[in-house]
Amino acid sequence: MTVNPGTLLPGTALADVQALLRQRAADSVAELVEFASIPSVSAQSRHQPDVLRAAGWLAGRLRQAGLTMVETWPTAGHPAVYAEWLGAPGAPTVLVYGHYDVQPPEPLERWHTPPFTPTVVGDRLYGRGVSDDKAPLLLTVQVADAYLITCGALPVNVKFLFEGEEEVGSAHLGTLVAERAGRLKADFVLSADGGMWSAETPSLTVSARGIAALEFTVRGPAKDLHSGRHGGALHNPLHAMAALVAGLHGADGRVAVPGFYDGVAERTPEQRRELAGLPFSDEAYLAQTGAPSPYGEAGYSTLERQWHRPTLELNGLWGGYTGEGSKTVLPSEAHAKVTCRLVPGQDPERVTRLIEAHLHATLPAGVTLEVRRSGHQARAYGLPPDHLGAQVAREVLAELYGRPPLEVGMGGSIPVLETFLGTLGLDTVFFSFSVGDEDIHAPNEFFRLPRLAQGQDAWARYWWTLAARARG
Amino acid sequence: MTVNPGTLLPGTALADVQALLRQRAADSVAELVEFASIPSVSAQSRHQPDVLRAAGWLAGRLRQAGLTMVETWPTAGHPAVYAEWLGAPGAPTVLVYGHYDVQPPEPLERWHTPPFTPTVVGDRLYGRGVSDDKAPLLLTVQVADAYLITCGALPVNVKFLFEGEEEVGSAHLGTLVAERAGRLKADFVLSADGGMWSAETPSLTVSARGIAALEFTVRGPAKDLHSGRHGGALHNPLHAMAALVAGLHGADGRVAVPGFYDGVAERTPEQRRELAGLPFSDEAYLAQTGAPSPYGEAGYSTLERQWHRPTLELNGLWGGYTGEGSKTVLPSEAHAKVTCRLVPGQDPERVTRLIEAHLHATLPAGVTLEVRRSGHQARAYGLPPDHLGAQVAREVLAELYGRPPLEVGMGGSIPVLETFLGTLGLDTVFFSFSVGDEDIHAPNEFFRLPRLAQGQDAWARYWWTLAARARG
Repeated sequence: MTVNPGTLLPGTALADVQALLRQRAADSVAELVEFASIPSVSAQSRHQPDVLRAAGWLAGRLRQAGLTMVETWPTAGHPAVYAEWLGAPGAPTVLVYGHYDVQPPEPLERWHTPPFTPTVVGDRLYGRGVSDDKAPLLLTVQVADAYLITCGALPVNVKFLFEGEEEVGSAHLGTLVAERAGRLKADFVLSADGGMWSAETPSLTVSARGIAALEFTVRGPAKDLHSGRHGGALHNPLHAMAALVAGLHGADGRVAVPGFYDGVAERTPEQRRELAGLPFSDEAYLAQTGAPSPYGEAGYSTLERQWHRPTLELNGLWGGYTGEGSKTVLPSEAHAKVTCRLVPGQDPERVTRLIEAHLHATLPAGVTLEVRRSGHQARAYGLPPDHLGAQVAREVLAELYGRPPLEVGMGGSIPVLETFLGTLGLDTVFFSFSVGDEDIHAPNEFFRLPRLAQGQDAWARYWWTLAARARG
Repeated sequence: MTVNPGTLLPGTALADVQALLRQRAADSVAELVEFASIPSVSAQSRHQPDVLRAAGWLAGRLRQAGLTMVETWPTAGHPAVYAEWLGAPGAPTVLVYGHYDVQPPEPLERWHTPPFTPTVVGDRLYGRGVSDDKAPLLLTVQVADAYLITCGALPVNVKFLFEGEEEVGSAHLGTLVAERAGRLKADFVLSADGGMWSAETPSLTVSARGIAALEFTVRGPAKDLHSGRHGGALHNPLHAMAALVAGLHGADGRVAVPGFYDGVAERTPEQRRELAGLPFSDEAYLAQTGAPSPYGEAGYSTLERQWHRPTLELNGLWGGYTGEGSKTVLPSEAHAKVTCRLVPGQDPERVTRLIEAHLHATLPAGVTLEVRRSGHQARAYGLPPDHLGAQVAREVLAELYGRPPLEVGMGGSIPVLETFLGTLGLDTVFFSFSVGDEDIHAPNEFFRLPRLAQGQDAWARYWWTLAARARG
């Protein structure tokens, strides 16, 4: 007999699930440590076997949880792991999204503990990928496991889609989602990736910036030359690169690429007032980041710069001799990596073309330029305010924290947002239990261990509440 | 009985020495290969044992040549190797200078043959340090050896001083020379370091640029941050670094540091005409270097920019993620290494202070700056036109090539020039048989093997002619 949990799950089910999760708290952490020990660095080809190992580990954990279909979906890059439980006809179907790949750990010398030996210090677990996105992802599987053990069913239908290329721009997920669109049908996406405002204050992310990425190389002489013999007579690619990069921004902090801000709407005075009312101070922000002062586009607050204004950022810049001691070289090349964060109204492809044109237009004499696209592109995203998934998130967070969540933007980008909306027509609700200050993409990434249990509780309530709301 | 070779060396001595050197040509190359196999990279601490090994090898070769005093002189850094033969009372004494240390070989992936496995390709020997300065240095010892075998004496008194820190700015040689000033008394310095204009055209270097060096670091947040979450709200050190570096030069190619050109004299119209008459073309220079076009200070020719105008060059620039793939990081630091080439009238210490002040004055908001001196400093140098050592060099080169040498400048710097002049009161005559295009300080450094025998012949004639001239 099939239970219909959308209507028939016993009233004590949620309490039973919560009790089991509390009882298994230590096991949950042990599992996370095991998962985060796998160096699934998607950007580095030497780690390809580790990425596959992480996918296999995750598929095994989903099978152990009792999911009825667990599959590894190959792509032209790293595979995605898919699983489903569809035993609640009539109840909503949520597509749970997350990613099991992680950022490169470099610079290694800045880590206080080995990045792939997850280490507990106080109430924090340190390790590459623990916050982005292994803990937030894993806890959703642990909640499904607890429901299936205690009730043999979930309150709603759930499909899990965990990709292995988020940190390299989800290059092949678009194709995969299009190919598997039938299997991925759902009411909306519930994302385990994202990150909350702070550990103490509940928040609901209602927008995310998009992204466009490119790399470029400036070339002078065909080979490295002696800077004494040749210096002054040929353009040093490092000087030309500096001039080129300096020309990407104005003294007012605005991006100087012509057309870059085309289509970018100003926020309304009311929206700006709301944002200014959030519990945020530049002083606390500087204390947290260690930066000497805020800096950015003139006329906007720090939060506006982070959430609602587009950016052009260098992620890497290099050329010449960078080792110990001195080497009097006039190098043949200089390199830069760039990503832009985009807001509604900006098209990643157009922005990339504008930057490319600007770089060529402002290229100094005596050097040549090569610009390469990285394929890392996504439009900005906004969640409709009255979305059912957003309403449930507000309700659950209000129950847990005793106050309604802040409605916040996300400075970062999740390229799959556009994929889910464009290909499947699905909105995405962010429900991640990582926190924005957990040094993701940086040395000494950590996850606050108490948030593992909090996240489990929240996800257990979320599915429960969604089923109840959908029943009416 | 002591022979006085200044007056008593037999008339056939030079011919006998030349014949012996021709007979030993293959041995001379084999010795060079052995010497250049030792990775005596003075800038890299892991190579310290190799630097010592090279010093030991060189001392051994000097003893084998029959030099009467061979000593290794310790310094606070790498040691110098000293040897002397003083059996020609009344004849001039020359202090032969060279260096047995070499530049770092990086970037290793750009070498076509292993840098420390010297490899003959056609008439070239490839390997780090073969041109700068191991072949030019070694051949002076081989010439002394040939004189001592054939005649049991040299035509003049010779002191050899070979240092191990030239590639790191000869940091401790000043102290050493001051301490050993008595032992180092001589009429002038004859330098085996330097490099000639071209393989076909004889040249005499009559000036060298000085050098000043510094490094600086721009710091923003205390740790690397996620460029999506934080980008736009804090100053990216890579942007600030680019602006800072771009501000070091004007659009006219001139160094923009206030006061930088103070004391720099313009060359006379006659000097400029002479220089313009040298056999040099920008087209050939671009073909040789592979650069797309000349570039530099407006109003000056390429040779003027290389020899007679001061420069400020970045040798290295780096920060953020420089590895494979993409990493969306807002890095906490950016770094730069700088060397200036100086001309007469500029004081290295003052130039360094001016740059430091300019960097602080132009530092963008939102970042901090740390400037470090590297200690790599030397004034520019000029050889008096009527110097006896220069006259002998002109005569020997004219004999060998059938025409008088070009009088050329040197874009590079030899810090010991100032040491020899300031501490010992000695001028320096450059008499090196390396050539400026031999990719010194770059991958695939090479030495033209026929120049080993040419250089030996030239040095044998030089000592012989000097003795004759001194006799009157």
